[in-house]
Amino acid sequence: MPIALLTDFGTRDYFVAAMKGVILSINPKAVIIDITHEIPPQDVWTGAFVLKSAYKWFPSGTIFLAVVDPGVGTERLPLIIKTRRYYFVGPDNGLLSLAAEEDGVEAVYKIEAKLPRISTTFHGRDVFAPAAAYLSLGIEPRLLGVPVKSWIKLEFPAPRVEDNVIHARAIYVDRFGNVYTSAREEAFQIAQYGDTLCFEAEGRIIKAKFVETYGRARAGETVALINSEGYLELAVAMGNAASTYGLKPGLDLKIRKCI
Amino acid sequence: MPIALLTDFGTRDYFVAAMKGVILSINPKAVIIDITHEIPPQDVWTGAFVLKSAYKWFPSGTIFLAVVDPGVGTERLPLIIKTRRYYFVGPDNGLLSLAAEEDGVEAVYKIEAKLPRISTTFHGRDVFAPAAAYLSLGIEPRLLGVPVKSWIKLEFPAPRVEDNVIHARAIYVDRFGNVYTSAREEAFQIAQYGDTLCFEAEGRIIKAKFVETYGRARAGETVALINSEGYLELAVAMGNAASTYGLKPGLDLKIRKCI
Amino acid sequence: MPIALLTDFGTRDYFVAAMKGVILSINPKAVIIDITHEIPPQDVWTGAFVLKSAYKWFPSGTIFLAVVDPGVGTERLPLIIKTRRYYFVGPDNGLLSLAAEEDGVEAVYKIEAKLPRISTTFHGRDVFAPAAAYLSLGIEPRLLGVPVKSWIKLEFPAPRVEDNVIHARAIYVDRFGNVYTSAREEAFQIAQYGDTLCFEAEGRIIKAKFVETYGRARAGETVALINSEGYLELAVAMGNAASTYGLKPGLDLKIRKCI
Repeated sequence: MPIALLTDFGTRDYFVAAMKGVILSINPKAVIIDITHEIPPQDVWTGAFVLKSAYKWFPSGTIFLAVVDPGVGTERLPLIIKTRRYYFVGPDNGLLSLAAEEDGVEAVYKIEAKLPRISTTFHGRDVFAPAAAYLSLGIEPRLLGVPVKSWIKLEFPAPRVEDNVIHARAIYVDRFGNVYTSAREEAFQIAQYGDTLCFEAEGRIIKAKFVETYGRARAGETVALINSEGYLELAVAMGNAASTYGLKPGLDLKIRKCI
Repeated sequence: MPIALLTDFGTRDYFVAAMKGVILSINPKAVIIDITHEIPPQDVWTGAFVLKSAYKWFPSGTIFLAVVDPGVGTERLPLIIKTRRYYFVGPDNGLLSLAAEEDGVEAVYKIEAKLPRISTTFHGRDVFAPAAAYLSLGIEPRLLGVPVKSWIKLEFPAPRVEDNVIHARAIYVDRFGNVYTSAREEAFQIAQYGDTLCFEAEGRIIKAKFVETYGRARAGETVALINSEGYLELAVAMGNAASTYGLKPGLDLKIRKCI
Repeated sequence: MPIALLTDFGTRDYFVAAMKGVILSINPKAVIIDITHEIPPQDVWTGAFVLKSAYKWFPSGTIFLAVVDPGVGTERLPLIIKTRRYYFVGPDNGLLSLAAEEDGVEAVYKIEAKLPRISTTFHGRDVFAPAAAYLSLGIEPRLLGVPVKSWIKLEFPAPRVEDNVIHARAIYVDRFGNVYTSAREEAFQIAQYGDTLCFEAEGRIIKAKFVETYGRARAGETVALINSEGYLELAVAMGNAASTYGLKPGLDLKIRKCI
């Protein structure tokens, strides 16, 4: 089964290569797939969101090895999470939680496999990569660690509809500058395709035509659509909504049908 | 046979990973190779040029999965193109055409494989990745789609030599800032190695020594050479010709021997 | 055995893909791993340092294919270096030397395999990739080239301790802006964890608390630590030391315990 990697290490240094070398040294037949290594440095939320958006397309049995780890070298636990269909390996800071909880957690282990000469700053290579490689050899997680009861979970911001206004949050900005909101099907409670939506962010109003797909928009037009992940997204056709409107993850949004 | 990917999705989001997950879910033994995911967003020409420059080095039978798709969600066709040695999978907007036509097109199919729950915005994952994965399992393209007669082809700008002047175009800028022109062997009709070439772009003149290889140039020197793809290229040794001279793809160029 | 690639080609062009296509055309079963393609253009030192930091984690028999090659097309030799555990393939400009010498050089060959139509500007594709692919098929290096006696080695700057001052050099800046110095265990000759270190660079003084791991630092705090590669490193917790203090590889540093 493949080992899928997600980190904030970038690809210009030797960090990711060292992890892959360790994996191949333990399991020369491992199939290694990169999800991304460009999570913004130490941005656990974004890492968790990208992992949640990617994992479900992989075959059952895939081992996800995720490292965004500002607490490396402290007492935060190194985890293996066994879910209904997958394994997740990484630090206990919430990074694995959005994906693992969605798939259904069956057991959580603190990695205990004693490895020689662990560095204090690079557990991706020294702790997590070996654990993922051993799992890919079919070794049971209970042989690699001990069960733990409590671990850190991130909260996904639940949108709320009141008086035809969706109270939501900007949760992600993708490469194209499209802004994902936490709103999903709630959009259809307040509007339908063809309507104009008003997004209020920090007191400013952004108007966006609610469309079914990008292809229906003119270049430069601001649109809102339900994207491939099911989120209500703000986009500028052939442009960049996040930079055009100064939006970033974490901002609160009020969304209504414009009058 | 490998599946080689080219997209404008970047590598910081979950898009490419989702495509790879879909491929591995259909064909767990698929060998996936990245050509690039850094085609400038929605720049079909650059995608087509990079694909044309890369494809021919791959083994016969390779499946090229290319997605630069500003028209996703509209009526543009999803295509499988069978050529003399390869398969090309992607949208019908010219992206596949430079490579496919060079290799020799044998048949073109509109992908019809009915997949459940296709999103309107991410056909890379929902339409093209499955088609490529099925092809990699040896499934015939006629079982995945229906033949089409007409499809979109990009025109490669043919250089023209008149009165010892090559009328050409800037067609590509690579990572090093080297500027590829549409001129090829025509260069030897107007000059020989050691001559100085005058490139006229938007009224300005750029002088460049015509050399056989970078290694023969001093740092900072502007040179012209026939590059590894056979194009006449403008380069600054140890520097960046595109930014030094403000050149970009699409600019018309007149090239002559300086007097 | 895997073929591990390191280049300064970036990933936005067709260069790396062409190399991979050539490898797979020669050995369809080759396992190709990317170390990085983002070595700064033509920066042989940085390429050599990243290769030295990555290679040792790979399984015995791995073939390292490294191309940072400002001298392409000149008389610089194309090399295969056989070391105690690995093969290194690339240009003779020092790029392979830090890693190869650390592992222990057993033999050095000039690649002579006659390939048809070698370009003068892209030996990565036309010379080095085929050599690596043939090695991955088990072909002996003496069948691909002829032994050479002399080849280019980079010098690693040895730190020196005098009167409780370490005379060292900045040797690498990683993605996080952490600055690696050439000093290693010498740090413990002048200070211990908890002390404050004074780094003098170009006449300016940078103060850094000497800590065991990032996790012990407050956000924004400047710290020094022995990193996972064993180098004394200057870092800003949750920040970027290189840009904060204007440091880059090559700068001389004097390091002492602050008074």
